[in-house]
Amino acid sequence: MISEYEKPLPHRPLRPVRWVDDGVLLLDQRRLPGEELYLHFSESVEVADAIRDMVVRGAPAIGLAAAFGAVLAALEADWSMGQSRQWLGRFRQLLQPLAKSRPTAVNLIWALEKMDQAAARLAAESGSPISSLLALAEELLVADLADGQTMSDLGAALIEPGSAVLTHCNAGALATGGVGTALGVIRVAWQKGVIRQVYASETRPWFQGSRLTAWELQQDGVDPCLVVEGAVGALLRDQGVNWLIVGADRIAANGDVANKVGTYGAAVLAREHGVKVMVVAPTSTIDAALPTGAEIEIEQRNSEEITSVSGVRIAADHVNAWNPVFDVTPARLVDVIVTEKGVVEPPFLLAINQLLR
Amino acid sequence: MISEYEKPLPHRPLRPVRWVDDGVLLLDQRRLPGEELYLHFSESVEVADAIRDMVVRGAPAIGLAAAFGAVLAALEADWSMGQSRQWLGRFRQLLQPLAKSRPTAVNLIWALEKMDQAAARLAAESGSPISSLLALAEELLVADLADGQTMSDLGAALIEPGSAVLTHCNAGALATGGVGTALGVIRVAWQKGVIRQVYASETRPWFQGSRLTAWELQQDGVDPCLVVEGAVGALLRDQGVNWLIVGADRIAANGDVANKVGTYGAAVLAREHGVKVMVVAPTSTIDAALPTGAEIEIEQRNSEEITSVSGVRIAADHVNAWNPVFDVTPARLVDVIVTEKGVVEPPFLLAINQLLR
Repeated sequence: MISEYEKPLPHRPLRPVRWVDDGVLLLDQRRLPGEELYLHFSESVEVADAIRDMVVRGAPAIGLAAAFGAVLAALEADWSMGQSRQWLGRFRQLLQPLAKSRPTAVNLIWALEKMDQAAARLAAESGSPISSLLALAEELLVADLADGQTMSDLGAALIEPGSAVLTHCNAGALATGGVGTALGVIRVAWQKGVIRQVYASETRPWFQGSRLTAWELQQDGVDPCLVVEGAVGALLRDQGVNWLIVGADRIAANGDVANKVGTYGAAVLAREHGVKVMVVAPTSTIDAALPTGAEIEIEQRNSEEITSVSGVRIAADHVNAWNPVFDVTPARLVDVIVTEKGVVEPPFLLAINQLLR
Repeated sequence: MISEYEKPLPHRPLRPVRWVDDGVLLLDQRRLPGEELYLHFSESVEVADAIRDMVVRGAPAIGLAAAFGAVLAALEADWSMGQSRQWLGRFRQLLQPLAKSRPTAVNLIWALEKMDQAAARLAAESGSPISSLLALAEELLVADLADGQTMSDLGAALIEPGSAVLTHCNAGALATGGVGTALGVIRVAWQKGVIRQVYASETRPWFQGSRLTAWELQQDGVDPCLVVEGAVGALLRDQGVNWLIVGADRIAANGDVANKVGTYGAAVLAREHGVKVMVVAPTSTIDAALPTGAEIEIEQRNSEEITSVSGVRIAADHVNAWNPVFDVTPARLVDVIVTEKGVVEPPFLLAINQLLR
């Protein structure tokens, strides 16, 4: 069952994904910034639908939502003493909708594999596995928060005083357990006083920049300046921007980065104008099994996301759109990747390999 | 007085700017594609407001609207026998709001200078200058249509069979007297059967691509595919696009091109992927007095255009936006400029100079 959650919650810090009252609580990001509404999910398939429908988005946040969704799946699989193998089979079947909810972010699969491995281990033991699985999901959330803080500090240390930065989409508290990746870096750098101006691209078609990033930054006391993505070229040429700072949805072994569509174009323009590119992502975003970004599956969504805004048709009738959600930025355009285990620079293949060891 | 025009009009071909019933008739492009509404203007200052408020947009169409607006100004200046010098002074004062309505498109100034020169000449003669000024404005419209056809044919001849093309903003019938520049080329090339796919960027913040270009192309029997501007990089890399075809709002003597914001970024991405860039514009768009694009004034509009869509707030409260309406694409990124007097290739300085002689 899905219900609006009306009990009082601690207002801050932002926690877009958590486990409350035997279910998954997600901040409905489609309603922001107009409304801060939390939805409570008591069935795993509803969590899968919520991921697909972008109630929650952002690679790390999707991973955490899936992990808590897996706890619901563990409950639904109905564990009973002496039937743990059957339970594990049912559990794995129930994980399928979660695994298929979005194709590009690898954190989703990473989190479900963690939960699956733990379930397999726990099934071999006596006693209900539920509380241990819940503890594991909570651990992933706590680690996400700690890793976010580590990445924020590491990335902020790279930013020169007086910098202007551009970010794309939302790689903030809302995209993670609650600290953020790219926006975590920007927040810490702002607090250190080394950033003079933050630009945020509005990020069509979902306006994550206008809706989420601007909102988050304002709450951190930062007054960002929005730009349409068509203005990114002129911005990077004319406005003295020093860094393009983005998150990632999947990073290949060679350092190719899949991220929100528009990242690739912005990275080409950054290189053209001597603007450095920083990718901030936990190591759970690295898919070491993929040699290059060419193998990353890019989610295509329907035309309607582009032809309508807030339910209002803006395009000519019946016109189609090409709507890839992500694009792949080749490693050669990336200056630095910041992870919770350290900062890596090109050539990435060896550096990433060492990082993951 | 501004009124909705309800008398029957010939439905096609599209004529976004014309002189009807002693006033200027403009197709209200802000209402498209939902509604095909014509507004009738009987005062020159209203025409200036309409240009500023984007009832009419597109450099050649703005020029024509200003020319017909100047006819209203000539009427308002109240010519009487033997007082033609006073009339000319009043006329020139009334041209000021038109001249200041938008700063970037040079066609506006070009058209007003034509009208002003004619007025000065006519004031020295006997008899009312009004009908001659109206005849001149009509001539500009007829020339625009003829030039549009010439450019369309010249540009289409450059497109290889089986091409895919991308256009940005709307440089079609709606942006001109009724044929178009970039879209005229695409229309003719489509009719010749050499284009397999037309992509149109949605063009934020005004959605000219989604609203106007898609609508126009559909009426020409072309089924375009929209992309958000963030997807232009991936599109040009992965979808076999051969040409980026755009209009222009002002072209400097060296071939630098001011056009709708987003053109510069798209041109950088085109060059990165070996996609050729075609700029289609009448010679009235060339500002030979400007050595380079660096001197072109770029109109900045307010944040609200970016933070709201169709009156619905999409961005966080109080957030600002950097909203340049145009950007400058350096001549080195342009492969060919198509004008009604011929096609020019780099180096543009000499070629443009010869063209204008």
